[in-house]
Amino acid sequence: MKLYGYFRSSAAFRVRIALNLKCLAYDTELVNLSTGQHLSDEFRRVNPQGRVPALVINDTVLLQSPAIMEYLEEIHPTPAFLPEGAEARARVRALADIIACDIHPLNNLAVLNYLSGPLSASDEQKTTWYRHWVMEGFNAVEPLLAGSADTGRFCHGDAPGLADICLVPQVFNAQRFDCDLSLYPTIERVYTTCMEHEAFDAAQPAKQPEAADIA
Amino acid sequence: MKLYGYFRSSAAFRVRIALNLKCLAYDTELVNLSTGQHLSDEFRRVNPQGRVPALVINDTVLLQSPAIMEYLEEIHPTPAFLPEGAEARARVRALADIIACDIHPLNNLAVLNYLSGPLSASDEQKTTWYRHWVMEGFNAVEPLLAGSADTGRFCHGDAPGLADICLVPQVFNAQRFDCDLSLYPTIERVYTTCMEHEAFDAAQPAKQPEAADIA
Repeated sequence: MKLYGYFRSSAAFRVRIALNLKCLAYDTELVNLSTGQHLSDEFRRVNPQGRVPALVINDTVLLQSPAIMEYLEEIHPTPAFLPEGAEARARVRALADIIACDIHPLNNLAVLNYLSGPLSASDEQKTTWYRHWVMEGFNAVEPLLAGSADTGRFCHGDAPGLADICLVPQVFNAQRFDCDLSLYPTIERVYTTCMEHEAFDAAQPAKQPEAADIA
Repeated sequence: MKLYGYFRSSAAFRVRIALNLKCLAYDTELVNLSTGQHLSDEFRRVNPQGRVPALVINDTVLLQSPAIMEYLEEIHPTPAFLPEGAEARARVRALADIIACDIHPLNNLAVLNYLSGPLSASDEQKTTWYRHWVMEGFNAVEPLLAGSADTGRFCHGDAPGLADICLVPQVFNAQRFDCDLSLYPTIERVYTTCMEHEAFDAAQPAKQPEAADIA
């Protein structure tokens, strides 16, 4: 199993956590986003979208972190990312989707480059944009967590799952952009719990082999 | 079953198609995005995120269209949105995710309002932005469809599924913004096939009751 990734990519970070939680060994193929390697013809032959992560299993290339995580859950059901019960699974997937669909896509590298390029946004405008979408999303995630008896030590119950896997990389990014996370005590509490777990800790950007060379 | 939606919301459009494909009857509760009704305290009590769709079944509120579609697939497995086989399901989900995560979130109403508000973007800049993200996404979807033997009359095989459900509302939006779809012959072909299907046709914005009053 080979993961095309990059230490700072949130979506690759998710897949690293997922693979660690499932105790699946994998090789990493670095795709250096800072030098534009993801846009090379060579990488486009792996993923026509030119994005990481891509997970190669045997000769099958799997794209898009949410689809990859559902795949891993299907082929390695234990430990489970998703709880028992269709309503509970819908809750966990919705929390994950708020982050994966409504926060992260607005703040990825391609978008920030478009803001500073064609839209001539200043660094301050980009930072304000970044924080705005994090807060819009976290303003929904926080009450959904704090107001539900389903929330436990993790986003759903007392075991890590799909929502936690999406939440943690987003909190990392929020911290990088100095978002005020004190507004989100439940998110902070779950994040802290996650980071005490080896699967999350080992997946963090600073612990990837390329981090020291590139940062 | 009650769907909080709006005729022009792509994400609500997806859920309308999904409910139609599963032959599930539902009531509609209009949330008028053009007057900001989604941001009212009343609607925030239904969905703290202030977004449509929200699907209420018994007393459970389901949020986020991808999570809602997975839920419908679980509780009403026939006709299936997802094919047999984990790799095939991962392919369909990845196609859906390219649209649901990498195109649509960049082009929704909240983002366009931010562009014209804090970033003072002109209408022309907003249209260019819109088309840019549609093309970025469709530039990946087209070869993934055209280059795969798994593609049939629909995105995967000869029955409509999750990828088609996401594709069709995105094509509608692309047409509204005059994107050049002739670059994407496979997308156009699948879109045409879908629109011949009653479940897709009946779900289109112009056929929703509020369309005549609001448009």
